[in-house]
Amino acid sequence: MQRALRLAGSPGVPLGPNPRVGCVLLAPDGSVVGEGFHRGAGSPHAEVEALEAAGDSARGATAIVTLEPCNHTGRTGPCSQALIEAGVAKVVVAQRDPNPVAGGGLETLADAGIEVEHGLLVDDARALNRAWTFAHENGRPFVTWKFATTLDGRSAAADGSSRWVTSVTARRDTHVLRALCDTMLVGTGTVEIDDPQLTVRDADDRPLPQQPLRVVMGERDLAADRRVLDDAAETVHLRTRDPIEALKTLYADHERHHVFFEGGPTLAAAFLEAGVVDEVVAYVAPLLLGAGRSAVGELGITSIGDARRLDLVDTVVLLPEEDGELINLRLTLRPEEER
Amino acid sequence: MQRALRLAGSPGVPLGPNPRVGCVLLAPDGSVVGEGFHRGAGSPHAEVEALEAAGDSARGATAIVTLEPCNHTGRTGPCSQALIEAGVAKVVVAQRDPNPVAGGGLETLADAGIEVEHGLLVDDARALNRAWTFAHENGRPFVTWKFATTLDGRSAAADGSSRWVTSVTARRDTHVLRALCDTMLVGTGTVEIDDPQLTVRDADDRPLPQQPLRVVMGERDLAADRRVLDDAAETVHLRTRDPIEALKTLYADHERHHVFFEGGPTLAAAFLEAGVVDEVVAYVAPLLLGAGRSAVGELGITSIGDARRLDLVDTVVLLPEEDGELINLRLTLRPEEER
Ligand SMILES: NC(=O)c1ccc[n+]([C@@H]2O[C@H](COP(=O)([O-])OP(=O)(O)OC[C@H]3O[C@@H](n4cnc5c(N)ncnc54)[C@H](OP(=O)(O)O)[C@@H]3O)[C@@H](O)[C@H]2O)c1
Ligand SMILES: NC(=O)c1ccc[n+]([C@@H]2O[C@H](COP(=O)([O-])OP(=O)(O)OC[C@H]3O[C@@H](n4cnc5c(N)ncnc54)[C@H](OP(=O)(O)O)[C@@H]3O)[C@@H](O)[C@H]2O)c1
Repeated sequence: MQRALRLAGSPGVPLGPNPRVGCVLLAPDGSVVGEGFHRGAGSPHAEVEALEAAGDSARGATAIVTLEPCNHTGRTGPCSQALIEAGVAKVVVAQRDPNPVAGGGLETLADAGIEVEHGLLVDDARALNRAWTFAHENGRPFVTWKFATTLDGRSAAADGSSRWVTSVTARRDTHVLRALCDTMLVGTGTVEIDDPQLTVRDADDRPLPQQPLRVVMGERDLAADRRVLDDAAETVHLRTRDPIEALKTLYADHERHHVFFEGGPTLAAAFLEAGVVDEVVAYVAPLLLGAGRSAVGELGITSIGDARRLDLVDTVVLLPEEDGELINLRLTLRPEEER
Repeated sequence: MQRALRLAGSPGVPLGPNPRVGCVLLAPDGSVVGEGFHRGAGSPHAEVEALEAAGDSARGATAIVTLEPCNHTGRTGPCSQALIEAGVAKVVVAQRDPNPVAGGGLETLADAGIEVEHGLLVDDARALNRAWTFAHENGRPFVTWKFATTLDGRSAAADGSSRWVTSVTARRDTHVLRALCDTMLVGTGTVEIDDPQLTVRDADDRPLPQQPLRVVMGERDLAADRRVLDDAAETVHLRTRDPIEALKTLYADHERHHVFFEGGPTLAAAFLEAGVVDEVVAYVAPLLLGAGRSAVGELGITSIGDARRLDLVDTVVLLPEEDGELINLRLTLRPEEER
């Protein structure tokens, strides 16, 4: 299974609506007769690749798969059927398929008389497709809320100027994180005031070939000249103020699993209050402003005991890459685990 | 000189108004004939200790001293005179004495025909007595401003509750830092609202035997029941709103070299504006409040380009020691170096 997980995580697999999957076929003597991994939407599933590599040796083999073989006909045929036809004797799975549309593969295999097992290294398999798993289990995308702040909690100065709170290094780092998501979301307020383009660019400021979906949330119209409406990527305007409704729409209608949510403070407060911030990435610039826009809007909290509590899971020191820049910090946090 | 620096930094030397000093006496053949270090106010200076250890072997020896031998008669006689009388041939010094009252030792030695040299490992010697050196060179104590903040820059919730923004671990850590200073300072506002005792306590919450001076700054009277007025330590009320005047008084009248300044936000802003914050220690608790007192008061900054810029010099992750506590961060910063 470790080998199958490593295959699944092979570099170069583009992010898309599909999970990363790896498969290893073992002959009864334990030797590997076929391997495969899924290379993204439209290409064969891991099991099919492994079966092709194995040819006739698949008969009587054990298939080790990181994810329950799919049971439905999508862009490719159902893998459970392919495994049955190839005559494998046993299927060992790490994670069961949380996608209600694709699940049930193990039952189909068992009905065909194949020995099935699941749960081996399931935590690793879930981690491999963290956002994808979360989205199917919760019926909405995983939300990473990113914000930039000064040491004294300001996201912009009193005159509204926020370019640039953080360093070039921090901004480049943000693009790396954006590229790991399939959606970027901001409120209409940020589009009106900051007019961000919301694209993912490389260190030389060139847009990447594959761009996440750009989403703007809020009831007001967007001015036609806003950069988020240019043709650098697809854009969706969700005319709602309900974070949960917006997220469910992104999951159900747009197959989105991981939203990189970049604020501003009003919408961030709404997401926090709705309980749909699953991860927080804070870029802290060692600046003091003493005034200006707060990084987080009103949360209805009046007493320190009611503060939102987060677990700090990662701290990264971002060294300056350019003259005159300051060291910044990236903090990654999650809502406090129940103890 | 490295040996002399190590002697100077011997553990157990109590913090006091005096610098740490180490001295090694070398015979002409390079062998060590005497060593000494200063053990705090009232005890013999390093040179005297080394000369006593060497006895007659001091004649013709080279004295290696981390600090220029004193030239004035304080609680002990001038060391320059003792070195002349002992007949040493050469004196090598790291740091010249920045204290205008005690300086001039090298000139006295040279006038007596002794070969003198200085500057060897001077940066290490300065670092050994960082606050002491700073205070004498600037005529005011070194100021470490400590504050506690949530991730969104709040020092207290909307109802004023600030106990406890930070974790037990962070609060214990604060006491360790307090113990390294000779003075603790807050504004009258903090005394009125928070009523802190401003003592240094150990991990079991017992007060340490030696307590820094407690200083309250501001024009209003203090209510007689304030804990800062109890007999746990000495207290000075400086009835001024001028940070520079207050610091000069602490240096000149109270021999203070290192102020641990704990706010509140109003006074912190005044210190920042006066340019007398030499180091910032920020305890960051992973909480979000969305409202409440800001960690820093109004600084008269309206545009992001005018923000106070700090260099991050240290980041420490403070793991929880007690159930239900969150990981906190301690950030140490300095005003940005001119580049
Ligand atoms: N430092 C950072 O990380 C960062 C990031 C982003 C933005 N900013 C700053 O934030 C400022 C913009 O702030 P903002 O708060 O106006 O922007 P915002 O949060 O992006 O947009 C607020 C708008 O979102 C809409 N909205 C959608 N759902 C909502 C809900 N549940 N509750 C309330 N409003 C909802 C409302 O407009 P409708 O009337 O259209 O519904 C509302 O006015 C800019 O100055 C920008 O520089 C900073
Ligand atoms: N999170 C933290 O690290 C932290 C630390 C300390 C306090 N706090 C919080 O801060 C709150 C107290 O805030 P605060 O701002 O009132 O306290 P403060 O800064 O301690 O005291 C302000 C007072 O200091 C006096 N003062 C002296 N020099 C001044 C100057 N140059 N400019 C202006 N005032 C000067 C003024 O009173 P006079 O009229 O007497 O001159 C002023 O009202 C409390 O709620 C406490 O919980 C938080």
